[in-house]
Order: sequence, then structure tokens, then C-alpha cells
Amino acid sequence: MGLLVQKFGGSSLATPQRILNAAGRAVAEFDAGNQVVVVVSAMGDRTDELIALAKEIHPEPDLRELDVLMAVGEQMSIALMAIAIHKLGRAAISLTGPQAGIRTDSFSTKAKIKTIDTSRVQRELAKGQIVIVAGFQGEDSDDNITTIGRGGSNPTAIALAAALGAERCDIFTDVDGVYTADPRIVPDARWIPRIDYDELLELASLGANVTPSRAVELAKRFGVPFRIRSSFDDSEGTLVTNLSGEMEYVDVRAAALDTNEAKITIRHVPDKPGIAATIFSEIGRANISVDMIVQNVSAQDRTDLSFTVAKSDLPRAMAVTRALAETLGGANIESDPNIAKVSVEGLGMRSHPGVAQKMFRALADEQINIMMISTSEIKISCVVEASKGDQALRAVHRAFELDKDEPRPR
Amino acid sequence: MGLLVQKFGGSSLATPQRILNAAGRAVAEFDAGNQVVVVVSAMGDRTDELIALAKEIHPEPDLRELDVLMAVGEQMSIALMAIAIHKLGRAAISLTGPQAGIRTDSFSTKAKIKTIDTSRVQRELAKGQIVIVAGFQGEDSDDNITTIGRGGSNPTAIALAAALGAERCDIFTDVDGVYTADPRIVPDARWIPRIDYDELLELASLGANVTPSRAVELAKRFGVPFRIRSSFDDSEGTLVTNLSGEMEYVDVRAAALDTNEAKITIRHVPDKPGIAATIFSEIGRANISVDMIVQNVSAQDRTDLSFTVAKSDLPRAMAVTRALAETLGGANIESDPNIAKVSVEGLGMRSHPGVAQKMFRALADEQINIMMISTSEIKISCVVEASKGDQALRAVHRAFELDKDEPRPR
Repeated sequence: MGLLVQKFGGSSLATPQRILNAAGRAVAEFDAGNQVVVVVSAMGDRTDELIALAKEIHPEPDLRELDVLMAVGEQMSIALMAIAIHKLGRAAISLTGPQAGIRTDSFSTKAKIKTIDTSRVQRELAKGQIVIVAGFQGEDSDDNITTIGRGGSNPTAIALAAALGAERCDIFTDVDGVYTADPRIVPDARWIPRIDYDELLELASLGANVTPSRAVELAKRFGVPFRIRSSFDDSEGTLVTNLSGEMEYVDVRAAALDTNEAKITIRHVPDKPGIAATIFSEIGRANISVDMIVQNVSAQDRTDLSFTVAKSDLPRAMAVTRALAETLGGANIESDPNIAKVSVEGLGMRSHPGVAQKMFRALADEQINIMMISTSEIKISCVVEASKGDQALRAVHRAFELDKDEPRPR
Repeated sequence: MGLLVQKFGGSSLATPQRILNAAGRAVAEFDAGNQVVVVVSAMGDRTDELIALAKEIHPEPDLRELDVLMAVGEQMSIALMAIAIHKLGRAAISLTGPQAGIRTDSFSTKAKIKTIDTSRVQRELAKGQIVIVAGFQGEDSDDNITTIGRGGSNPTAIALAAALGAERCDIFTDVDGVYTADPRIVPDARWIPRIDYDELLELASLGANVTPSRAVELAKRFGVPFRIRSSFDDSEGTLVTNLSGEMEYVDVRAAALDTNEAKITIRHVPDKPGIAATIFSEIGRANISVDMIVQNVSAQDRTDLSFTVAKSDLPRAMAVTRALAETLGGANIESDPNIAKVSVEGLGMRSHPGVAQKMFRALADEQINIMMISTSEIKISCVVEASKGDQALRAVHRAFELDKDEPRPR
């Protein structure tokens, strides 16, 4: 008995039958005595279709109008979900983001939720209705429709759960939780029953296909525990919550492989103040995100600087870097798209030294050369040759015994 | 120079190119120094597609939720129209019905507009924007999305024109105005440059494919003159306005043919009070609309009663009538779906006697038998055999010289 928020993504709503399946989950929780708020995304690829339609008219559509257009996708879903719950014989009412009291700033297509006035939602819940809320959308202080960025239905669900003081928030998706590594590469990968917000945030940044960071950050900030669950089976999923108060952590929670990055190396850069600042401010100006940055120790006032960017940004990043060649004193510039980044992460690394050594040993035992290393408080990443990526991930997964100890999902 | 309201229907917006064409018309009026408010319907058959989707989930979807779903069609159109106007280099902003201040009662799918708070529209006009408003939709006093009935973008346009004190309202559609008869049947049919609200209302009820009555009634009530124009050419269309103050009217403005009705005749009904009331209250209870009702003079306390209903309602109307057979004292019931209703109408008929005789003569000269006659202050309708319908329409059109006198559209 309590208030639950359930969120269904586009793939869970792609057909009328899937909408009815999702409705069945809401009804099951309602029949168990809970108050249920359902947050929905647009059906399947609807949002992309709407954007394509706008671009047939104008290659760069106005962002305010794009928001008005895109908000249509979730509005369709709320009505159809309410109708599906009626079909199952229960009371339900749909609310758009604005109707649900979701107020945002005015940054079209990437607005931030500022406040949620839950009075309408609570009034409808009190009437015994299952309340369906459109994810991804809200309105600004001038009543303009806004959207809060791709994947925005997750933050909507978390923010609503926080504002309503929900007991639980279930994020239904097409995977049955978080694993110690991608099971397609590591057959021994284990389901993780519980993971800390920070561990999941780190995993997302390491290239794992998990809930995007923004929703997780929001959940962490407001202390909203949530489950990542499959909409296609009854497994319990992974609970994402605050584990930092626990007496003992596992050293390493999970391993991940990212094959979407490329490396740029600038050799023999003059080792003087301001060089790195010049390079990375130019690259930032070109709107290119840099992930890892490694600078070797200086030899004869010259140093080597390596960094990684998304593969899709490599040509532009190389152009920017080459244009800087003169400033760089004739430095030699190389790029390598054939890299993979293998990482391990876990809260326990904070207090358990020796994780790095164990990782390096595991790679060395497999004759895998490490090209770059980067560490944070709770993760270690090594760049290796792309062709060795899968082997490296399996070796690291085995070295930290991630295939042992905890149960698989039921 | 003034404030104009332009309304574009679904066929004028069916493709991105047509949306750009419609946008061009708004821009032309704007560039001529006018303030322009554009009211749009859903693109093409979008509304029907949305309803079909809902019915895949539930054969009788909840009407409130159907409104939430259907409102999506016009919301797409406003965003795309604004983007199209931007493409043409002018400023434009889209507003949903609720954003445009359109407040309705709570009768889902057939709400009535109660008030329009034009402050947002006027604020945007004052900024030099072309303002795009979603037709067909509004919100009730509890912030629920409502729709105002099929074809509801016309009433939205008229009501907005009234609330804004617009100088003109142009209803763009796929015909270039109102004609003295359907040109597909009567090749000599003439374009009508000006028509009175009541004449157009009568024409709509006579089966002509013209602007539906509700918008015309609203225009009449608020004294909003409007043009029915083609979105596919530059003809000036037909001005619909109040002509009752004019010194002289034409006798007959137009002729029309309706082949969508069927006739039911009840023979030898007891001629006593309450019989007609019984019959038509039962038929009304079955939600069947009756058009013409004719009762012949009584012979031997028995009379014949004929009435017409939409062909699609004939089986149900016959079932209701047969169920009443006993009450009717064993009356004999017949039906005939092979009828056509030919009509002439015009304000001038009020003061010009002899119109009926001229019509009967025209039909008699063609050896066309009249099965039923019905008159109102400004129209005469005759039911004839379906196979004689086109011939009857041409004969009547010729008899009243509707092919003469006024100019064709340029």
C-alpha cells in the first residue's frame, strides 16, 4: 500500500498491444491497493517522425515550435494509456505535462523542471483514478509548451516521484536491470540487484547502455530510489538507491566497454603553461566533448598529450587540432579510431587500494597493451586496441570475480 | 490594413508543400500591412487516424481521452504552420486552443465555446507575430482539453474573428466559393459573389456541400462577415454576410440536390391527436434525425404520414416504426430509398410569391412526379424519384434563370 510511479518508454508502448500490456502492470499495482501514477514516453519512434516532418518544411525548425510539435507524441500516449486502462475496467485520467503542474524554465527542447504543483494529480488519485502523466514535457511561466530533452520521460518520472513522496518508482524498459557487464560480450555477466546512484552514473559515463545520467542525478539529489525493470517479463529489476551508508561495499560493482571513442595524440608539445588550455578551449568552442585526457611526463621541455573524443567527432576534432598546429610549435598530430575503453567501477574502490594493480595485471596476463589510463575516485579506465576490447572486458570481469556471489534475477 | 483571420482546413494542409502554400497566403496578407491570425485544422485525415488508433485499444474510447488524443492533430498543424512561416522569413508563434484563451463547457467531443480571452493573441500580434491558433479545441474550467465537434475549426475561426473584432475572416477550403447549384450536375451553375447567412444555412440543410451550419450560425449571431475561398487559386470566393437590409433580393439564390435521404410512409394512420408525437419522439429517442415530414389531409379518419431520414439511418428508423405498428392501429409501413430532394432557396422568396408554382411547373414540364413537398419561409423542397434528381435540379436551375446575371469568379 503506497504511492507508486511507473514509467514506460517508447519501446514498451510501440503498439496498441504493448500499451495494453503496460496498462496491465498499472492495474496490477492498483488492484494490490496502491495509488498509481504512470509516466509515458511517445510511442516507438514517434518523436523522430515528428522531427523529420518539421525538417521537410524547414531544415532548422524554431525550437519553441519543435517543442509544441514533439509534445504531441506523449499526448497521444497518455490518452491511449488511459483508454487501455479503461479497457481493463479501471478508472484512469490522462494529464499533459502542463496539466500535471510541471513547470520548467524556457530553454526550448532542453528545459529544466523547476517546480511541480501536484494538486491536480493528488486530486485525481484521491478520486480513485490511475493518473497518466505525459513525460518529457512541461510549460514555462508564460504558458509555453516546453520539452526537457531526449529521454526526458525518466526525469519526469523521478521528479514526480520526489514531488509526490512516492514510495517507489519503476522505470520499465527493454532490459531486466543492470548487469556486471554487457551480457552479449561477457556470458558470465551477473544481474546486479542493488546499485548506488554514483555507481550507475559512472557506468553511464563508461559507455554502458543504462538509464541516462540526468534521471539518476535527479534521483540522487532528491533521494528517490527507483527500479530499472523489464516491461516484457516479471523480473524484479535493479534497485538504484543510496548505498554509501552501508558497512561494506563490493570493491568493483561492474565493468564496461566503450568502443565509440577515438584517440588523438599530439606529440612533442612544448611543455609550457597554457598549451592545454588553448587546445581544449578551441575544441570546446567547436562543441566537441572530450572524455579522457592524458599527458605524459615531460622530456626535454616537450611532452605528449593524448585525449579521446566520440568517433563521430573525430574529423572535426582533428581539423581543430591541426589548425592549432602552429600555436603548438609544429607538434606532430596523430589519430587512432581503433581503440576501446575498458573500465571497472564501484563505490568500494574508494577504500580498497589495489584495484588498479589488479586490473593492469589482468590485462597484462592477456598480453593486452594499455595505451591510456584514467582514474577517478570510483573508476579506472584503460584504453586498449579495439580488436582486444571484448577480451579485455572478459579478463577484467573475471579478475574481479564479477561472475560470482550475487544471485541472478528470478 | 486591419486584423484578418484565415482558416485552413485539412485538405489545405495535407502535405508539407501545402502547408508552405497556406503559409504564403498568411505572409502575403501580413506583408500588405495586416495583422494576421491563422486557424488550422488537422492535416488531411489525421483525426480519423487518431480515432482508429484509439479504437484498436477500446471499441468505445472514453470521450475525455478521445479529446486529448484528437487535439494532437491540430497541435501538429500549428507548429508546422509556424515553422513554414519562419521558412518564408516572417515571425510567427503557435498557440493551442487553451493557450489562445478558448474556454468551453465540458461536453467532451462536442463542447461549446463559452468565452475567448484574447489577451495572449493580442500580445503576440502586437509583437509583430503572425499568430497560429489550433482550431477545434479548447479547455474547460477545470483545465481539461476539449474538442468542439467535427469541422470545429470553422467555428473557432469565426469565434476568434468575433472576439478580436476582425475586419475579415477567410475560410480557405477546396472549393472557390458557393455556386447556384453543384457544377458537377449543372454545368451552367454560377458562382455567387455574396450570400446571406440564412441562405447559406438553408443551403447546408438542403444537402449542398458548403460550410457547416454551426460556423454560419455563429457568424450570423456575432455579425462576422466571412469569405469561403479556395486555397488552390486566387479567386475571391463568396462573401457570406447579412444581406437582409438590402433593398432588393434575388428571388432564388441557389438550387440544391440531396440524394442521401430515404422516405418512410405510414399509410392509414388513425387521424387523432398524439400519433405524430408518439412516432417522432420514439424516432428521436433512437437518435435519428428526421428531415421532411408531410401529412396528407385526412380521409375517413385515416391519414398518410411520410417523412425522410438519412439513408444510413433507414434500417433503424424502419425498425422503430415497425415496433410502433401496433400503437398505430395496424398501419401499413413502406420505405423508399430511391428518392432525391431538389430545393430552391433565397431570402427573396419571403416577399415574392409565385416561386412554388414556378418550381412545380418546371418539374411538370419535364414529366417529373413530385412525391413530397416541404416549404419554409426561404426554401421549397420537392422529393422526386432518385433517377430524375439531376434532371430536376437542372430544370429548376434553368427555370429560375440561375445561370444568368451575376459574374463568374475571376
